[in-house]
Amino acid sequence: MIYADNSATTFPKPQSVYQEVSRAVNIYGGNPGRSGHAMSLRSAEEIYRCREAVAEFFHVADSEKIIFTSGCTQSLNTVIRGYLHYGDHVVISDLEHNSVARTVHEMSKNGITYTVAQTVHGDFEKTIDNFRKSINDKTRLMVVTHVSNVTGTVLPLSRIVALAHQYRIKVLADIAQSGGVIPLDFTDMNIDFVACAGHKGLFGVMGTGILYLKNAEDVSPLLYGGTGSSSLELTQPEILPDKFESGTCNVIGIAALRKGIEFLNIRGVEKIHRQEFALLEELYDNLAKLPDIRLYTPKPDNRFQAPLLSFNIGDIPSEEVAQVLNDRYQIYVRSGLHCATLTHQKLHTETQGTVRISLSCFNNRPQIQTISHAVKNIFKEYF
Amino acid sequence: MIYADNSATTFPKPQSVYQEVSRAVNIYGGNPGRSGHAMSLRSAEEIYRCREAVAEFFHVADSEKIIFTSGCTQSLNTVIRGYLHYGDHVVISDLEHNSVARTVHEMSKNGITYTVAQTVHGDFEKTIDNFRKSINDKTRLMVVTHVSNVTGTVLPLSRIVALAHQYRIKVLADIAQSGGVIPLDFTDMNIDFVACAGHKGLFGVMGTGILYLKNAEDVSPLLYGGTGSSSLELTQPEILPDKFESGTCNVIGIAALRKGIEFLNIRGVEKIHRQEFALLEELYDNLAKLPDIRLYTPKPDNRFQAPLLSFNIGDIPSEEVAQVLNDRYQIYVRSGLHCATLTHQKLHTETQGTVRISLSCFNNRPQIQTISHAVKNIFKEYF
Repeated sequence: MIYADNSATTFPKPQSVYQEVSRAVNIYGGNPGRSGHAMSLRSAEEIYRCREAVAEFFHVADSEKIIFTSGCTQSLNTVIRGYLHYGDHVVISDLEHNSVARTVHEMSKNGITYTVAQTVHGDFEKTIDNFRKSINDKTRLMVVTHVSNVTGTVLPLSRIVALAHQYRIKVLADIAQSGGVIPLDFTDMNIDFVACAGHKGLFGVMGTGILYLKNAEDVSPLLYGGTGSSSLELTQPEILPDKFESGTCNVIGIAALRKGIEFLNIRGVEKIHRQEFALLEELYDNLAKLPDIRLYTPKPDNRFQAPLLSFNIGDIPSEEVAQVLNDRYQIYVRSGLHCATLTHQKLHTETQGTVRISLSCFNNRPQIQTISHAVKNIFKEYF
Repeated sequence: MIYADNSATTFPKPQSVYQEVSRAVNIYGGNPGRSGHAMSLRSAEEIYRCREAVAEFFHVADSEKIIFTSGCTQSLNTVIRGYLHYGDHVVISDLEHNSVARTVHEMSKNGITYTVAQTVHGDFEKTIDNFRKSINDKTRLMVVTHVSNVTGTVLPLSRIVALAHQYRIKVLADIAQSGGVIPLDFTDMNIDFVACAGHKGLFGVMGTGILYLKNAEDVSPLLYGGTGSSSLELTQPEILPDKFESGTCNVIGIAALRKGIEFLNIRGVEKIHRQEFALLEELYDNLAKLPDIRLYTPKPDNRFQAPLLSFNIGDIPSEEVAQVLNDRYQIYVRSGLHCATLTHQKLHTETQGTVRISLSCFNNRPQIQTISHAVKNIFKEYF
């Protein structure tokens, strides 16, 4: 079996993550931050350690600015819905996931306007220029995916932040596909808000997400409720992380996330990235040799692409290709639209979708060769 | 060690739950409902099985009306924020958790009005009457906890539903403290919306919750995003459960929840309830013998009280009593305000808080005797 669907969720996880899940469910039986007894405190201490680990990993000095959520979708919705008000304008890229596009679209029914800025793969200047042209005097936020979950296209996040700040506009970055995959320094980037999943490049498990808020004053919570703090007040506390962490968190998931980050620290994100990117280059070269293959990005350049790609074989529906890869070769990839409407409108693949191969550091060269051969064989069969 | 903080989260879990967590992290490595490959489908099938199990457990015919959330807080916020509009009025009980009270209070800043209906422990007539008096011509929703998380007081949920429906008002029940503890039949109750945690009486793990929606048409989602369905549409799909399940769910947690429910089905909720209630009665009788003890509910009657209670010893701060129980006896209880502002205003315990003992079927008579002796000893020491 070859797993190449790491953009959906990484598999396998490091052994330490599996071990930690089994350990955590036994060790952290108390509800963190709710009671003062020893079991509750033990859980709370673990949450604290993970918060510190995430903050350090992304170069954030104040770990309370790291919020634990149920996933990247909750993180994104929190900022988009909690920061924008009636009359505001928001710019999003044309590579946004539906967790951004649908949220903004829904809000457009209630007095928020939005503009989709066209991105150009490999041309940061034109991309930046298109973002600039999308700004109007109501613009308060830009929402930008760092890496497209369909094509792997990298957007110039730091430059978009610099542009936005010239106009006193804040930036929310969706790093679902780049967190743990590309080295990131939130402080250096001067980014305002960042949303990330815990179960992708960070090697945690499903049901976990991260939200970073450089400044949380202007953001309302998505969830109101018990925080274990200021309990006598009917007003949600303003202190972080409490303001955004109502309810009981996913203790097992958070403990596992710490082990995922530990793994990344030991192995090194830069090294992982080099390894994954070399695999991508080889895969791309193999696929590009086939006639009638459709690749949606140019030859990989690590400034402009992350370790994933989309392709199609002629006009064959992407689902059909993925099904054959699954049934005959036990190669697990994703096909269809990948919850990214805007991207498929851009690529004109609304009907066909794309076959996506997304790699992790647990993939290797023999797997790339097997995948390449499998695609070649499917190709021969159909043409 | 004696764990008596089951209202915060149950401990221990059944052995099958621990085993399932360890198993699930290995078995369900694919993202459910996102891709068509074997690993993704295996995860999706498990989510489906759990949805069916929850539906059957609560006597719901259409399992797609069961939504998986990150916790009871998200479930409650979804309905309260997604059903009420500008100008609407909502009635809540005076025993609501902050996940209800803070949410409603926040919305009162934006054109929603609310009334807190006074409840009377043990007097369903007066309670119902107070709910009736709280209705006005703008009332569209009543939010009612089934069981107070501070006193264990049971509210007459079915009768509140009947009352509300006379006025075409919908009812959202918070069963965080009664789900898995008291037998519940959602269909028979004719309830509109129900929110429950997965990690309390249902014996799942932290980071899971359930939302039941008899009719979801009038409820907007809290989270917009990828659903793996209708991905070409920028509009959130209306079909259930997709409408309310954007993003990647907590697969391990959901798999564990199924094992928790299996445990309840095997042992039987009614039997568990009888056992827990007998322990509560014994505990109450022992505590009631002590002079200067403050108990906040009358002698337990299972129609009016669930297996938890609050007390104080004279004027000793509740935190101090809990600390001694923890340090000297390894008895783990919760003190303070339990994220329930309104309840402490009602009990006039805003400063002192209360010591809460909350039981599960894993508690036993020797533990009740130990707890009773410990409280007696603390008592002697102080007076």
